[in-house]
Parts: sequence; structure tokens; C-alpha cells
Amino acid sequence: MDLQKLFKPKSMGVVGISKKNPLSPGRIILLKNEFELQVKVYGIHPEGGELEGVQLYSRLDELPEIPDVLVIAVGADDTINYIKQCADLGIPSSIIIGGGFAEIGGEGIKRQDQLQKIAFDNDIAVIGPNCVGIYSPPIMDTIFLPTERITRPPKGSVALISQSGGVLVDQFFVKFKERNIGVSTAVSIGNRAVVDETMLLEYFGTVDDETSNIAFYLEGFKDKRAREFLKLAKKAEDTVITFFGGVTKQGRIATQSHTASLAGNLKILSAALKQHFVIQAKSESELLTYLKVYDVLSQRKKPFGNNTIVYGNVAILSVSGGHGVICADLIGKYGLNAVEFTEEEKDLLKENMNPIAQEIASFNNPIDLTGSVLDTDIENQVRVLSDIQRIECILLLLLPYPPNISFQIGRRLANIITAKKKPVICFIPYVPKYSLIIESLEIANIPVFHSIKEVVQAASALKLRSRVNNLKKSNLFWEK
Amino acid sequence: MDLQKLFKPKSMGVVGISKKNPLSPGRIILLKNEFELQVKVYGIHPEGGELEGVQLYSRLDELPEIPDVLVIAVGADDTINYIKQCADLGIPSSIIIGGGFAEIGGEGIKRQDQLQKIAFDNDIAVIGPNCVGIYSPPIMDTIFLPTERITRPPKGSVALISQSGGVLVDQFFVKFKERNIGVSTAVSIGNRAVVDETMLLEYFGTVDDETSNIAFYLEGFKDKRAREFLKLAKKAEDTVITFFGGVTKQGRIATQSHTASLAGNLKILSAALKQHFVIQAKSESELLTYLKVYDVLSQRKKPFGNNTIVYGNVAILSVSGGHGVICADLIGKYGLNAVEFTEEEKDLLKENMNPIAQEIASFNNPIDLTGSVLDTDIENQVRVLSDIQRIECILLLLLPYPPNISFQIGRRLANIITAKKKPVICFIPYVPKYSLIIESLEIANIPVFHSIKEVVQAASALKLRSRVNNLKKSNLFWEK
Repeated sequence: MDLQKLFKPKSMGVVGISKKNPLSPGRIILLKNEFELQVKVYGIHPEGGELEGVQLYSRLDELPEIPDVLVIAVGADDTINYIKQCADLGIPSSIIIGGGFAEIGGEGIKRQDQLQKIAFDNDIAVIGPNCVGIYSPPIMDTIFLPTERITRPPKGSVALISQSGGVLVDQFFVKFKERNIGVSTAVSIGNRAVVDETMLLEYFGTVDDETSNIAFYLEGFKDKRAREFLKLAKKAEDTVITFFGGVTKQGRIATQSHTASLAGNLKILSAALKQHFVIQAKSESELLTYLKVYDVLSQRKKPFGNNTIVYGNVAILSVSGGHGVICADLIGKYGLNAVEFTEEEKDLLKENMNPIAQEIASFNNPIDLTGSVLDTDIENQVRVLSDIQRIECILLLLLPYPPNISFQIGRRLANIITAKKKPVICFIPYVPKYSLIIESLEIANIPVFHSIKEVVQAASALKLRSRVNNLKKSNLFWEK
Repeated sequence: MDLQKLFKPKSMGVVGISKKNPLSPGRIILLKNEFELQVKVYGIHPEGGELEGVQLYSRLDELPEIPDVLVIAVGADDTINYIKQCADLGIPSSIIIGGGFAEIGGEGIKRQDQLQKIAFDNDIAVIGPNCVGIYSPPIMDTIFLPTERITRPPKGSVALISQSGGVLVDQFFVKFKERNIGVSTAVSIGNRAVVDETMLLEYFGTVDDETSNIAFYLEGFKDKRAREFLKLAKKAEDTVITFFGGVTKQGRIATQSHTASLAGNLKILSAALKQHFVIQAKSESELLTYLKVYDVLSQRKKPFGNNTIVYGNVAILSVSGGHGVICADLIGKYGLNAVEFTEEEKDLLKENMNPIAQEIASFNNPIDLTGSVLDTDIENQVRVLSDIQRIECILLLLLPYPPNISFQIGRRLANIITAKKKPVICFIPYVPKYSLIIESLEIANIPVFHSIKEVVQAASALKLRSRVNNLKKSNLFWEK
């Protein structure tokens, strides 16, 4: 099946456009693509005519060309008719928005079987049915919700595949935007009657070169496809990350009313994923943090360290003792270890502090530089820590409240960190006035988080990726 | 000791003002109180004169009145001299910013003993040493960091007491502001040489009537004061909430370099806290969610339900199946239970939906209303669920993306929820364009969160508070 034409179409047809209801899904899809995106779009309406200045064709076979993809936003029975037309006309791919298939049981299951047969017999790459659509910037956006209501994530390295359309547009789009995590393509797979997570893993892992990280929200694998998925994941050059819903008893009950699938036995699933180099997020928060790290690091000009390192040994650098304590409490939970400094190292750290602060600062790990800190102190500490071989990652908890910390600190640290090639994860409070410092670091592809927990999760993301890199003998964002 | 004069002073002296360095702590404290707060403030500088238009007095005994509180922002030895002067002049309270006491060991411990003796012998309520100060709006702010650098939380019901100044101004102030959680008073207790967490619990629990909730960040109790703290907590009318740092092995090592105290054996601590009706947050995120719920509910005009209910049985109402699944996965972890609906209840829920959506919606628990939902559907579902006795709390996952949901939905739901008196916790995505909906609910004191996890934590906060209410036979925010 030609997924390239599905995700990067040159031309697209849309059926299911209402002339009366401005909120009809087909109409929303037609107009947002016509006015906002690159794909050439053709609207089909039995009466022909026009809509907000856009010409409508009365039949699919009257279009000036065979479109690469047909978006079908009509009732279930009409959907089957349109898929038959795709087969007849040689339209290679389709996105089916509407429901009324397997998710309603009974008659719906039969309909889905019919749909499946036509698609496979005619090699039509069908997404859905019962999905919110595909977002493939800057080419296409078939998400049927009004543009102004949803939040579009930036362009980036993550192919995002979700079994729930609501989770895709809400939990992911909103939080990707907030955290500046970029997507290459986002896909709501709905009932995944034809194109499923395994086919998508193959496409994004081998064909799509904009993608470096492939993330899945799943409530279970498609029947009998788990083994194939895992096999592909193990070979994938890209980082594969999953987050499963429906993993508890109450959650499993919930999925039965939703997409009729089960994440199954979590322990077996976890072991299988780990064995096949899939990185598992155990919570939404972990997923977002991991993706932020992987997306940012995919874009670094100068990669970090080398791929033989397993990032478990960290140094914590703070200007607040309490932040150090909270951070230290979390690192054990995430399988990390605070390196113990030698007396020589402590002396070196101390020598590199201003004379007033060096008397009250603490040079254990976590290091507490105190509120008497200067810019140069933080810079020097990062330099010294970067040069200590057995420190694999620095967790920098940077509170810009001390009066002598300047707003240049971000840029100055970014240069040092980039030159030293030691992974540094930053905490900076999420306050608009500190965005200058935050942006200085993010422009240099140094990941910044806004909670201590996320900093620790991010360090564990490096460790997880390092393990997979080593096993795959791959060198993604680590130097050879 | 007179803590009233410490926290609600009419007049305040400040020593340690630099005429040369605009960033000296004493100078920052003098000017921010002079220009921004209600307390009458007197600056003391050996040379006298004036600073930015503010008159300076050359000696403490030259002030026109005995101040209620003296802020001391000088070196450790001078600090002792000033505390002696407080004793001589009858100044009843003091806030000591500087370090050089027990936290540095050796000589510092002796100094702190001396300070302690003078304070107790002369009944001087001393906060600190080694603290960032007190924020008591709108009267006083002795936090020595520049006003423009820190974030001030709104006024509210939470007395916030922190053993770490950095955690107070960063993790709490920033996140309180973000979540609209209000403080009555915020205190950095530093080395707590004199005034400690137990005295503060007593003051905020019995004297200060602006406070309904007392929150502590501690890395351990002050020596031999745990029993007294717990005794007071058990009797307190207010809700007492703790979050402990330094509870893991790595965290304990970190506290030794910080404030030389240990949270001790976590299991024993947890059991003792529970037995004494202290609500324990296990993470910062839990603490913030609990405080948000308690602060909002302290301000409700019409209280919720009655105090015999233990809020464990919930209904989940969403317009996205995936959100329901993720929520259902979390509720078990937080000791909550999704109520099972009877067939009659499901029919009633279905009848109250628009005819198109009722065919595709799912009326199990979680309820999935789908993207075809109308405002009136959500309103009706909340009405029906509110009338089902055994549902104790409704978790409403409100995604405003479906095209037919209006921006009036917040106000309309707020009225229904207020009238029905059934606890409802809302999720709404944290996107500026949806602030109209968010604010409609928050104005009516209905708590809104921006992650599914926080919604579940919030429901568990109700359950925890309900348990404590029942045991205390108190009626805080529940009707008699």
C-alpha cells in the first residue's frame, strides 16, 4: 500500500460537504485545506456549484485528476459506496472519518469486514473508520474539528499515532505546543480496519525521513499483529515509544466501551516491549517528557557524548537546597544515581565560586550554590562538572531569583553546554518573564523543563535511549 | 510568644541596608515594604540620611516607636547584637535572613544556641535564621529577593510553611499563581531556631482566622517536637497537609548538606501523620492539587453534600473515549471506584442526549458523549448524574473541541453544579482561548484542572478530607 500518497498527497478529494451546516466535518476539512494547507483539494457535492468561493464537483469521476487521497465524511453505508468508487477509479488511499463500523458491534462489524475486503483487494490505504483524521504539516490537515478550536503542534521529528482521536488533539496537540515538541505527522487510527499501527511503524521507520521518533498511544495491538509490530520495532532506526491506556482493571472496562481492545497483561507486554527496544512511557507525563528530549536532541547540531555511555550517573546543580533534596528524592525512583564527588573535586568546585558564596555553598551532590550565586559561578560549575568523566548527565536547577543572576545566563550556558557535549537537562520556572532564559537554551537544543520531576524523567529518557542505542548499535544523537 | 505581631505587624524595622548595593537584601526589603505594602517601615543605617526618598535612622533606639518586628539582614555576629537590642528595647519579634548559624556547624551551632537563649528568655518570636522571609499580604513582604524577579501568589486560605526558601518562592509561589491557589501567609522557617513548625501550626490553626488550610514542606520535624506537632494537628479545625523532602536514601544525603535534618523512617512517619489527621501529599503535584481543591472549596458560597460521605465513588463524564480510558486507569491507583450504572440509569442518561449522539455515545462509566455532543447534552448528563445518590463525585473531562459546544457551557454548568451541590471536578485543556470557560467555573469555586491525573488526584483529595472531617466531626465545606 502506498502510504506516501496518504501522508504526502499532492491532491485530495473530500466527500460529505454540507452546504447548510458550516460545522459539517467534510466542509471544515475542505475549507481548512483549501485556505491553510498545500494540498490541492477538490470538494464533491451532488449539486455541484460552489462554497465560499471554492468550486464543487458533482461526482468523483468528474474531478480533473485522480486524487492521491479521498477523505470520506459521510454515513457508514455511503462510505462503502465511496470506497468502491476508489477501487473503480484507482484512488490509492482514503481517510474515513465517520463511525458506524466495528465500534457499534452487530451490523457495524459486517460493514467493517466489507470495507476491509475492498481495501485489501484493491490495495487502498485506508485510515479509520471512526477517526478524527491526519495532520501532515504543511501539506494536509484532515482533522474534522474547526481549526480555531484546536491547537496545532509545531513541525518536528515525532510521528504521533493515536488510537484515540480525543487524546491526539487534546492531550498531545495541546501539550506538544506547550512544550514545543514537534510532529512530523499525526495520525488518528480509529478502528484501524486497514492501515494499523504496524504498517505505520514500518512507513515512518523506513520511508518517512522527516521522522526520527515514533510515538504510539494504544489501548492494545490490533489482533495478531503484535508480533509483527515488535519485530519491526527491534529493527527500526528511529526511536519507538509507546504509552498504553486500558492497563488497569477499571481502564480495561473503559476500553470495551470505546475501541473494543485490551492492552492485555501489562507485565508480559512490558517485557516484550523492552526486549524489542521499545521505550515505554508509564504515564502521559513520562511520554511527553521523553518525546521532548528525543525531539530536541534529534535537532542538535553538535551531538552529545558517545553511544557507549549509559546515562545513569548524574550531578545535580542548584541554587536552592530544597530543590536539590526534592530532585535527589526522585532520582532513585527513576533508576538514576547521584555521583559522589571526591575531596579534590569538591575543592575544585569550591575554588571556582565567588569568595562570599563559596563559604556558604555546599559541594556535595546535589550542589547548592545558594542565593549569593553569580552567573560566572554557574558557568564555572557546569564547566568543571562537564570535565568529570564519570558524570554522564548534569541536572541544572536554575532559579533566576537570586539578584545577581543576569538574563544573559541562558545564552552563556548554552555556549558552554554545546561546546562541552555533556548532556545537561535544565529546570527553569515556567514564568513568562523568564522566557528569555528558557529560549536561549532551547534555541541551542538544550531541553528545558518546568518541574523537577520532568528533569529527572528526562535524564531517565537519556538512559533508556542509550540502552536502546547500544543494543541497536545505532548512533542517533550520540557521536560515533 | 506573640506571633500576631510577627505576621500582622503595624510597624517594622529593617537593619542591614546598603547605600551602595541596590541588591542588598536589607535594602530590597526596606523599599518593597515602603512602596508596595501596608506596614509602616523604618530603615536603620549607622550613617542615617535617606535612600530613594526614605528616611533612615542611625540607631534602633532612635525610631519614633518600638516596631512590632525587626528584620535583620546582617552578618551572623551582628545579628546576635541586634537580637540583644530587641530584648533591651522590648521588640517582640524578629525575622533573621542571614546564615552562619547551625547550618555551617561548629561555631555556627554555638551562635544559634546563643540566639535561641536570648529569644526564649525574652519572649522574642524569631523566624530564621537562614531564611528568605515572610509574605503576609497585604501587610508585609520580607522576602529578600527582588519583587520583580519573584511571582506573588494570590490571597487565599492557605498558610504555607516551608523549610526551604527556594522551594517556597519557586515551587510554591510560581505554581500557586499558575493554579490560582491563594495564600493567607507564607513563611520560610530556615533553621527554625525559635519559631518552628509546631508553633506555626498552633498559630495558624487557632489564632489566624484567614487560614483554613495549613501546608508544610518539611525535611523533618524539629528535634523532639514531632509529638507536639501531631497532637496539635489532631485537634486543628483547619486542614493540615504535609509534603516531606528527604524521604529516600539519596534525598536524605541531600538534606544533610542542607538543613541537617531527616524525614526519618517514612513508614512510621506516614502512619503517625494519618493517625493524627494530617493529609500527606506524596509528591509536589499531589500537594498542589490538594491545596487547590481545599482552597477553592473553602471559598464556596454553597457547600457540597454532607460530611458523612466518603468521596470514593465517582462517575467519569467525557466527550472522548480515550480520556475516559486514561482516567479510569488512574482512579484505582488513587483509591477511587467507578460506579456501575444500572440499566435504568443508562436509559435515563441516553434519553437525555440529542438523537444523533445518543446512538454513538457510550453510557457505561466512563461515559463517552462523543464529538457530536451539544451543550444541553452535557448539562443534562450532569443533572442526571448529580441525582444518583451513590455517585459521590463527578469527574467532568470537558474538551471544548466539538463544534457544537458553546463558550457559554462553563457558566451554564457552573449554575447547575452549584445548585445540585454534588462535587464536580473539571478537566479543561490549558489553552488561553478556553480561559472563558475555565474562569466561568472557577468564579463559582468549581475546581478546574489541566491534566487528567490532577482531576483524579483532586477527587482523592475530597476523599481524604472527608475522612478527616468525619473523624474530627468537623464540617468544613460540607453542610451540617
